[in-house]
This record gives sequence, C-alpha cells and structure tokens, in this order.
Amino acid sequence: MTANMPSAIAVAPSDHLWSESVGAAVLRGGGNLVSVEEARGLIWLSKGEANITEVLHPGIEWVQLRAAGVEQWIANKEINDSRIFTSARGVYNQAVAEHVVALLFSACRRIATCARAQTWDPVRGAGGMLRGSTVGILGAGGVGEEVIRCLEPFGVRVIAVTRSGRDVPGAANSLSASALDQFWPALDFLVISAPSTAETAAMVGAAALAALPRHAWVINVARGALLDTSALVAALKNEQIGGAALDVTDPEPLPDGHELWLLPNVIITPHVANPKSVHLARLEERIEENVRRFIAGEQLLGVVDLAAGY
Amino acid sequence: MTANMPSAIAVAPSDHLWSESVGAAVLRGGGNLVSVEEARGLIWLSKGEANITEVLHPGIEWVQLRAAGVEQWIANKEINDSRIFTSARGVYNQAVAEHVVALLFSACRRIATCARAQTWDPVRGAGGMLRGSTVGILGAGGVGEEVIRCLEPFGVRVIAVTRSGRDVPGAANSLSASALDQFWPALDFLVISAPSTAETAAMVGAAALAALPRHAWVINVARGALLDTSALVAALKNEQIGGAALDVTDPEPLPDGHELWLLPNVIITPHVANPKSVHLARLEERIEENVRRFIAGEQLLGVVDLAAGY
Repeated sequence: MTANMPSAIAVAPSDHLWSESVGAAVLRGGGNLVSVEEARGLIWLSKGEANITEVLHPGIEWVQLRAAGVEQWIANKEINDSRIFTSARGVYNQAVAEHVVALLFSACRRIATCARAQTWDPVRGAGGMLRGSTVGILGAGGVGEEVIRCLEPFGVRVIAVTRSGRDVPGAANSLSASALDQFWPALDFLVISAPSTAETAAMVGAAALAALPRHAWVINVARGALLDTSALVAALKNEQIGGAALDVTDPEPLPDGHELWLLPNVIITPHVANPKSVHLARLEERIEENVRRFIAGEQLLGVVDLAAGY
Repeated sequence: MTANMPSAIAVAPSDHLWSESVGAAVLRGGGNLVSVEEARGLIWLSKGEANITEVLHPGIEWVQLRAAGVEQWIANKEINDSRIFTSARGVYNQAVAEHVVALLFSACRRIATCARAQTWDPVRGAGGMLRGSTVGILGAGGVGEEVIRCLEPFGVRVIAVTRSGRDVPGAANSLSASALDQFWPALDFLVISAPSTAETAAMVGAAALAALPRHAWVINVARGALLDTSALVAALKNEQIGGAALDVTDPEPLPDGHELWLLPNVIITPHVANPKSVHLARLEERIEENVRRFIAGEQLLGVVDLAAGY
C-alpha cells in the first residue's frame, strides 16, 4: 500500500511533456508514483492552463509548483492555506543572475545599438566601463545575492533594497523599502528583482524613473508588473533615463507593434533569463529534494508565504 | 637648462587634441615639457596619421606610443632598435576584459538576436548558461588573465594558450601554441586576445574554425588580422560555428555592405573594447608612471620587444 503514505506522490497533468522526467525525479527522491486520487503530495506542472483546484482533494497535503514566482496562482486563489504549497523559489537564481549580468553588460557596452547597426560607427557604438558604477538591486533576495556575487570582480558599488533593510552581504549599502528616495538618484543601473506582490506593483513608476539619473538603465528580470510600462515608455522618449533591458514586460508576451520594440535604447529578451535548457534539470533537483524532505517530515524548500505574497 | 636632461619630455604632434592633458601627466610624473628638438623622451599621440621618423633625432632615447598593439609601427619600420619604444600594453586590460565578458554573455544569451527582433519569440530568443561551459583564451597575456579573473564567479572551465605553454593562473588547462589540435574541439567559446604578429596572422583560419564544435562562438578583441575573415564568413554560412562577436575586423573599419553586417549570429562592436571615456585617463596614468621611471633611470613599462613583435 503506497496510497496515503507520505511517499505517495502524483505528477499532473499526466500528459505534460515533462511528466516522465519529473516522475523519475520523484522516484530518485524516494517517492512512489500514484494517481492524483491516491496522492498525499502533488507535483503540478501546468503553467496556469489547468486549474489546480479541480484536482485537489483533502488527502493532498503538499503541492509543488514549477515557477519561482507564484503571484498568478495566488491571484487566482488556487493557492490557499488549506495545505502547503511550495514554489521553485531559489531554483533559478544562478540562471537569472547570469542574465542580469548579460543585460548589465549589454547596457553598459551598447550591445543592442551595435547589433542593430550596419555601419562602423565608433561614436554611437562606444559604451563605458561597468567598473566604478553603482548598481542598485531592488529586492535583494536569492537572485539579488547571486548577482552581487557575480559582480564581485568588476569593482562596482552595490546598493541593495529589501523590505526590512537588513544588511545584504556584499552590498556597500543596504536600504529598506522606505528609503527609496535616496536609492534612485544614486544609481547608474537599476536591477529589479523583487517578487511581484500587491505591495510591489508598479513600484518603479513615473516618480522613480524621474528620480533616476538621465544616463541610468533599468533592468527588469522580475515581473513586468513591477515596472509601469507607460511611465517607462514616456521616460525613454523624454530621455529621462539611459535605457531599459527587460526580460519581463507588461503585458507579456509583448504584442507586435508595441512601442518598446521600436525605441533605440531598449533590449527585450522574451522571458528567457531562466533558459529552457536548464529549467527542467534544476527543477528536477528541487523536486527530488522536496520529495525526500516530505517523506522524512522535514521542512520543505520554497514554502509559499501567503501573507507576504510569495 | 632642461634640454638634454632626462626630464626633458616632448608631447607631439603638439596640435593633438590630447596634448594638453597628456602634458599635464608628464608634469605630474616630474617631467619638464620641451620642444621635440630639445627632448630626450617623446610622447607620441598620433595613431598613425603622422610618421614618427620625421621628428626623431639622435637625442631622443625613449618614445612612448599610445596603443597597446604596435604592429603597424613595426610594419612601417617606425619602431626600430635605435632607441627604447614603449607601448600602452597592459593599460587597457580591465576595459578589454570587461568587453570580453560583455561579448561572451551576449553570445551565450543571444542578445543580438533579441535586439534585432520585433516580436516575442522565446524559442529564438533563448540562450543557455555560461556556467559549465569551456572558454578558450588564445593568447593569455594581460587581457586573458584579467578575463580569467572576471569569469571566476561563473563556474566556467578556462583553457589558456600561450606561446610557451606556461601555467596560467586560474586556467584549468594551460597549453602551448603547438598543442592547438586539442584546443579547438574542447571549446564552447574561443576568445582571441593574442598580439598581432607575423606568427599570429590568420592563426584562426579555416582549419581552426572547422575544428571548433558547431555551437562554439568566436570572440575577437585582439586584431582583425588574427582571424581569417573569408574563412569566418564561410564557417558562419555553413553553420560550422555558432556565431562570432567581433570588436576588431579585417578590414577595419568594416565597410558598409560587408557580409558580416548581415549574418544573423554576428555581433560587431566598432573597436570600442577600450572605450574613449576611459582610454585617455588610463593612458595618462601610464605616461605619468613611465616619465617618473625614465627620469629615475628605472625599467619602463611596456617596452616593445622587436623580436617578439609586440
């Protein structure tokens, strides 16, 4: 009898492309694969096409989601306090931090301008040094801390913002969310890496953009909702900021013909900070570990805090 | 009398844009500014428009050039063994290494593809992780060593090639130029950072490109002459390599309409690895230091070795 044992784990939707390899990760973690009806733990692979609540039953104590940001499931009330939900928070930190570095250097070295050029123009094509610049990290959680580690060789000054204002390792300056007035004007580069919550929605809006230096670039690898798109377009058009490098947009996907596609100092990567090629492998590692912990009755990784919203 | 003293330094051509601020650097180094006729040391600011030999006289013991690569002055026989010539070798290492990192991540994260897109396409736009990849550094001198230092947080494996095959700090593997057969097939990214000499001309040609893995990118921040342009174009068209990110080209400037402007997996930055904004400041530091050393009779930095060709 594996049903009703903590090792009884289901992977659903069962026809999902990843269900077989994720099932193998469950087995490596010591789990037994059972039907959803018999499961105490559920690995839920849908990105949002299917609704979890349609398969949940009282016997399911734990649901593992595939994404690091789970705001859509919270908004949709698919996550509630009836059981433990875990996100993939932290799983993709290295991948996303690499993408931040890619976007920082692309901004600094005018890679998009160069990529679009078909003529040799050392004036338009010349950037500056990252060394000596100030990089602000709005939401210095796991991704932000990994970014700070990656930037260590480059001699930049990091200012880190967290809700609490706790000392962030490696940051020259750690601020709380109430000290943003001194944050914006100090930056050469703003990296947005906070979770998307009611509190952070449109946190970077017209006022923040106006407070940034005119040469500053905005880099968003969090969620489109944190950055007010119309305010951003206006700031870019009015040359209030230097440019924007966005892995996430609002709306997303960014529709064809949207102004952001056409502005010169904009780089858009289509939500690929966490490349598909590494996504599944990292997720499987987390699933294997959480299955092992669930069976052993240990604290799971990435437990969603409904009050915090992530 | 400052003429004929070691502190007698001239800056020429005297109408050069930089002559005033470079003159100030000479003074900071303890020099006295004199005419070329009276000088024992000459700071030569021309990039090649003017010929040094037209101003040289037997009293000039030392000539400081502004560039890190001096192959054009050697080819032109403007540098000879009649006196000491110093280049700006090493002055721009940090700037060029940053540019290598920018190009590596641009390659890895498909930034050029994304910059040229005007539609949301996560398949075309998705790159991979730099972490876990193998980066080959062809010519691991000052720039290469700085690149290795910069890549430390990213968990890459570096294979370094030098003429001698000496152990390069931070490289997993150090090879001599005679072991290139085992170098090319091992690489995900090839960084060309060797000096341009008779020995290194077209060192990366059809054979090398054919020996690289099909997904490998070629990054050139050295000189266009090290990479055979027609072989590169053919390798890109035949999908023998993944792409090319070039700060230097052959010919240079790359003419309008050249095939390299039009190939999809190519990023061209117009010889801006060492951005103008930092160029002069770093050069002044070197000049100040070399003037001080010249007056004190100490070993100068960046002495050109005619036999080695750099």
